[in-house]
Amino acid sequence: MEALEGGADYLADERKKTQFDVDAMKIFWAGGRHEFQIADRMARLVASDPEFKKDHRAMLGRKELFKNTLRKTAHAWKRINELRLTEEEASLLRFFVDEPAFTDLHWGMFIPAIKGQGTEEQQKKWLPMAYRMQIIGCYAQTELGHGSNVQGLETTATFDPETDEFIINSPTLTSCKWWPGGLGKVSTHAVVYARLITDGEEHGVHGFIVQLRSLDDHLPLPGITVGDIGMKFGNGAYNSMDNGVLRFDHVRIPRDQMLMRVLQVTREGKVVQSNIPRQLIYGTMVYVRQVIVYDASRALSRAVCIATRYSAVRRQFGSQNGRETQVIDYKTQQSRLFPLLASAYAFRIVANWLTWLYKDVTERLQAKDFSTLPEAHACTAGLKSLTTSVTADGIEECRKLCGGHGYLCSSGLPELFAVYVPACTYEGDNIVLLLQVARFLMKTVAELGSGKQLAGTIAYMGRAEHLMQSCCSVQKAEDWSNPDVIVEAFEARSLRMSVTCAKSLSQFSNPEEGFQELQADLAGAALAHCQLIVVSKFLEKMQEDIPGEGVKQQLQALCGIYALSVLKKHLGDFLSTGCISPTQASLANDLLRSLFSQVRPNAIALVDAFNYTDHFLASALGRYDGNVYPKLYEEAWKDPLNESVVPDGYHEYIRPMLKQQLRSSRL
Amino acid sequence: MEALEGGADYLADERKKTQFDVDAMKIFWAGGRHEFQIADRMARLVASDPEFKKDHRAMLGRKELFKNTLRKTAHAWKRINELRLTEEEASLLRFFVDEPAFTDLHWGMFIPAIKGQGTEEQQKKWLPMAYRMQIIGCYAQTELGHGSNVQGLETTATFDPETDEFIINSPTLTSCKWWPGGLGKVSTHAVVYARLITDGEEHGVHGFIVQLRSLDDHLPLPGITVGDIGMKFGNGAYNSMDNGVLRFDHVRIPRDQMLMRVLQVTREGKVVQSNIPRQLIYGTMVYVRQVIVYDASRALSRAVCIATRYSAVRRQFGSQNGRETQVIDYKTQQSRLFPLLASAYAFRIVANWLTWLYKDVTERLQAKDFSTLPEAHACTAGLKSLTTSVTADGIEECRKLCGGHGYLCSSGLPELFAVYVPACTYEGDNIVLLLQVARFLMKTVAELGSGKQLAGTIAYMGRAEHLMQSCCSVQKAEDWSNPDVIVEAFEARSLRMSVTCAKSLSQFSNPEEGFQELQADLAGAALAHCQLIVVSKFLEKMQEDIPGEGVKQQLQALCGIYALSVLKKHLGDFLSTGCISPTQASLANDLLRSLFSQVRPNAIALVDAFNYTDHFLASALGRYDGNVYPKLYEEAWKDPLNESVVPDGYHEYIRPMLKQQLRSSRL
Ligand SMILES: Cc1cc2nc3c(=O)[nH]c(=O)nc-3n(C[C@H](O)[C@H](O)[C@H](O)COP(=O)(O)OP(=O)(O)OC[C@H]3O[C@@H](n4cnc5c(N)ncnc54)[C@H](O)[C@@H]3O)c2cc1C
Ligand SMILES: Cc1cc2nc3c(=O)[nH]c(=O)nc-3n(C[C@H](O)[C@H](O)[C@H](O)COP(=O)(O)OP(=O)(O)OC[C@H]3O[C@@H](n4cnc5c(N)ncnc54)[C@H](O)[C@@H]3O)c2cc1C
Ligand SMILES: [Ca+2]
Repeated sequence: MEALEGGADYLADERKKTQFDVDAMKIFWAGGRHEFQIADRMARLVASDPEFKKDHRAMLGRKELFKNTLRKTAHAWKRINELRLTEEEASLLRFFVDEPAFTDLHWGMFIPAIKGQGTEEQQKKWLPMAYRMQIIGCYAQTELGHGSNVQGLETTATFDPETDEFIINSPTLTSCKWWPGGLGKVSTHAVVYARLITDGEEHGVHGFIVQLRSLDDHLPLPGITVGDIGMKFGNGAYNSMDNGVLRFDHVRIPRDQMLMRVLQVTREGKVVQSNIPRQLIYGTMVYVRQVIVYDASRALSRAVCIATRYSAVRRQFGSQNGRETQVIDYKTQQSRLFPLLASAYAFRIVANWLTWLYKDVTERLQAKDFSTLPEAHACTAGLKSLTTSVTADGIEECRKLCGGHGYLCSSGLPELFAVYVPACTYEGDNIVLLLQVARFLMKTVAELGSGKQLAGTIAYMGRAEHLMQSCCSVQKAEDWSNPDVIVEAFEARSLRMSVTCAKSLSQFSNPEEGFQELQADLAGAALAHCQLIVVSKFLEKMQEDIPGEGVKQQLQALCGIYALSVLKKHLGDFLSTGCISPTQASLANDLLRSLFSQVRPNAIALVDAFNYTDHFLASALGRYDGNVYPKLYEEAWKDPLNESVVPDGYHEYIRPMLKQQLRSSRL
Repeated sequence: MEALEGGADYLADERKKTQFDVDAMKIFWAGGRHEFQIADRMARLVASDPEFKKDHRAMLGRKELFKNTLRKTAHAWKRINELRLTEEEASLLRFFVDEPAFTDLHWGMFIPAIKGQGTEEQQKKWLPMAYRMQIIGCYAQTELGHGSNVQGLETTATFDPETDEFIINSPTLTSCKWWPGGLGKVSTHAVVYARLITDGEEHGVHGFIVQLRSLDDHLPLPGITVGDIGMKFGNGAYNSMDNGVLRFDHVRIPRDQMLMRVLQVTREGKVVQSNIPRQLIYGTMVYVRQVIVYDASRALSRAVCIATRYSAVRRQFGSQNGRETQVIDYKTQQSRLFPLLASAYAFRIVANWLTWLYKDVTERLQAKDFSTLPEAHACTAGLKSLTTSVTADGIEECRKLCGGHGYLCSSGLPELFAVYVPACTYEGDNIVLLLQVARFLMKTVAELGSGKQLAGTIAYMGRAEHLMQSCCSVQKAEDWSNPDVIVEAFEARSLRMSVTCAKSLSQFSNPEEGFQELQADLAGAALAHCQLIVVSKFLEKMQEDIPGEGVKQQLQALCGIYALSVLKKHLGDFLSTGCISPTQASLANDLLRSLFSQVRPNAIALVDAFNYTDHFLASALGRYDGNVYPKLYEEAWKDPLNESVVPDGYHEYIRPMLKQQLRSSRL
């Protein structure tokens, strides 16, 4: 046997090639020294704690898997308290534990919903219990029959003035709550969205705090049917979450459990608008989507880290100094992998910018300035859609880049894909979101020339006249490394696509009909706008000082790869709108190839900069030391099927087949 | 509760809209009346047999799942014999049982390998036992360290003239056989690929029949270590297959177990080429890939059937006659779904054409005419790559088209995806295959003008001069329904991309270096060539008489959708090569939209024509009667987590959390 085992670093040669300061890049990636340090500390804390071991997840049955997750959640909570972690630390600890669980919804949706939609009094009553996990809550909006169309929800909350209560009811099968995470088995409470009815009149959909289970014995309260909705995509993956079904049979709750920050129901059953503007709620949406964009950069970088390391270890065909070629040296491999590496960095930069945007929006809302809200809303909706779609596809591409071995659970990639893909659907179906962006764009285009001030990510539309006829100046490949050239090409493309859509829309006498008919093109225009935002934010970041030797150069190369690979993928847009010429497209492709070569020697260091532990990656292929084969081999033998050499079922099913005396076969 | 249950057909209104003869389309889809009838009979046979029930697959642990599959396999074999099924019928029965199992490799690879590479004597000895399943075999080529590069395999087969035996050995960890299906737990025999060594000399990689397990007690024979390689992607899915690991410690086999049809080793250890040409082996490859293309049309059509039916049931937003809009009426939904519907039909037509090609190649080979082999080989390699990639992505797109509910195992789509995706990797990694096609194209372009006769799928390159400067004649949207216009646009695009690559290649002094550098563009040119083949074969089929009222019209609409959606997706190619103008592109888009409207009322009937049983679809969303919600609801309660209202783990982990008195928390 070849001696592959041992403490050696099989990627040492790769790491020697690095042309930049990896530690500085780690800090850039983390978003600062402080951020790096806590993330690093939490990651190590989790990795070194045997309670958080990830082994065998893929092999567990549903009940074992779920119980195992409960155990880890309880242990995490214990550690959070023992170590007196801050909220920031606690949330990172939960992230590195890396198992979807009811706590995600409790901290990520239940608490924010009460914060955002509850009165001060309600917050004072419920939040302390929630913070101490004396109650556990979930977010119960979606029903069997309605997800995207929240206004179509069927659950009713009817005010009964006699008792000063709401009666929560599920009038149809399709009105059952369906999907809420943490609902099925754990949550004691839920924020339930229902149609408010007082005095026979409907007042739209609102949130209500409803207790679901007894705090004594965890049994569902009278009138409540609750359960798990069953297995979801993949092994392990999201199956550690108890997404649930919930049916109400005339369940009564006190009036003060309606979340009344914006709308109130009085003792008499009158519906009163509070003096708090509705728009405040959009702040929460911007926040939640910022988190999703950030998570996209995490998931994509994780997959890219695995695929990049394995591509440097894997050799197939050809020969370099007598050994076969590392597959990372194949240009097809680079042209699939490096744009994803660049996207991971791009999304991280955009996520950090969104943190700023959220702060900005919040401050403005507090000052009653709602002017930037539509733009911020469109921008975050679009970026959620774009980043999650690219990440979902990107993880699967990384899996394919690992050849056959990527199909094994021990590669870590199947579970990562299965656990990630619903991000394209929850918090707004990605197509539905793009269509919202498109509506905003069409409104903006319609108002062009009206003198209305265009700010933020939509400012470029103010230069419509110029952009409609601008000409790309590229004459040689390197011209494409000029940020102004790139931004203008993306701006022109986006604007022209929007304008074309607007023109086509104006042909319809009924604009809504037109919008329906042209949906596909509108979604295309929206995507173009979102890609422009990512490219712009990446380029803007490159205007700043970035500490660390060679760090900025690497980021600039990645920025070029991001922009030019998007351009290549959507070349039809750029050419058909006349933004660039075929020759310029071909020059862009030349520069892209040379950027790949520039990044190649730094590829391993660029994924090392993510600072992921082997525990977190949970991948035989993505190991830091590159020693993949012994690990793959070792993992295989752990499968329950290998408990016996002769499989269970041999005597009943295989042996009779082998021993039979066939007479009747016609084969 | 709304009365959703009952025997009603919730898609009856949809079915009433149909404008063509569905029964005739069923026969077209099946490839003939005879084919339809046996497929229909086998599907019903499986669906009505309680032994073949599919319930609970996703919830089973690995061992239970595997044993369950053994049971079904044994039962299938029993039925095959009892009913005296033909090979065609038996293979359809296994297909409808719909569980990957060792039998796939036994019938699909082990037997064909012996047929293709064994001498007549060897065939006589081994095939009858294999046909009766008195031995069970697998195909052991891939190793831990080598998949794509078969010439790099490390297993050795060293001839020992003293005993007239080969010694099969695994000299390194990476030389372990790794992946072969059926190897891990079931196979008694394998065709093992190993480097032939006689008298210290290497003679390349060849196949050897090796017995692995005792036929008495199923224990591995001395010197053999064998096991399962562990869990793979998804629930159920490919985990019913025992992909295996195999290590040889100097295992001896008789000389006559080397497959010697092409190359022979004599008693003295001399290596002798037989009079059978090597090329014969390519026949098998064409066959296997034809099967894979056919399977792509099956898997894609299955996903499309589920997504189409559910899209007609699902309503969200808007309003049609007071009810919400069926999501199938949204143009974004159509623009994602209908090209996949069209692709399913396109791949079916191509698969049927490949059956003809295989026959043609076989006849020519027997007549020692090898002239068409390179073209047939490139064409099948490329079509395998194209159809499996589109199908894998297409299944996931269908899952997304079902919104949140597509993420549930009860939708049937997660398992379909997980079980399908390795088709992009096995039988040739899809990128490696495209690069093989590219090599063939570059060779063809290099020989243009040499007077060499170009036949088959490459014939169009003979009209290079014309195609290099042809101009698309489209002036209005309907012009795009002219088959000649479409074919010429696709031919011109493909040829021009190849010629551009060839020109770039000629700039390199070392052509191999050039090929490496330009890999990504070369793969693009190869893909363009393959898409042309699909479009051409679809259009050629449309030249034939096709029985059944309205059938041909529907197929023509699908053909247009296929071609124009490929054109839209790869618009950059068409524009940058100057094959069409931006205005013509926009007209193509207009026609595409109107074809969507044409197909819309027929969509349900077009998926009904696949004739899939509810048993086979195994999807709450894809049910024939469209009655999805009660079924989703019912399936949920079967989850093991729902066995108790209070989950296992409550007392240990949740209750203490809820009841604790926290003092130390800083949160
Ligand atoms: C893992 C997971 C966790 C979840 N967690 C929660 C939770 O904690 N709490 C909660 O309340 N919900 C949760 N959900 C539900 C989730 O929010 C919904 O699934 C999501 O909003 C999508 O809605 P839908 O499923 O109704 O999709 P649908 O709207 O039915 O989408 C089906 C198809 O119709 C298309 N479509 C719909 N409307 C339009 C339109 N107007 N124009 C064009 N196309 C359209 C979509 O693009 C899609 O292709 C979760 C879902 C998942 C998968
Ligand atoms: C479910 C499943 C079942 C299987 N069943 C069997 C079986 O029954 N018997 C058997 O023998 N094997 C089987 N295999 C193995 C399968 O045939 C190999 O996985 C396949 O050939 C791919 O090889 P690889 O895994 O070595 O990929 P690699 O070649 O390692 O691919 C890794 C990456 O390198 C790239 N790459 C490789 N070479 C080049 C190149 N020259 N140029 C550019 N890029 C390149 C690829 O595109 C890919 O992105 C099975 C595999 C799977 C997943
Ligand atoms: Ca499982």
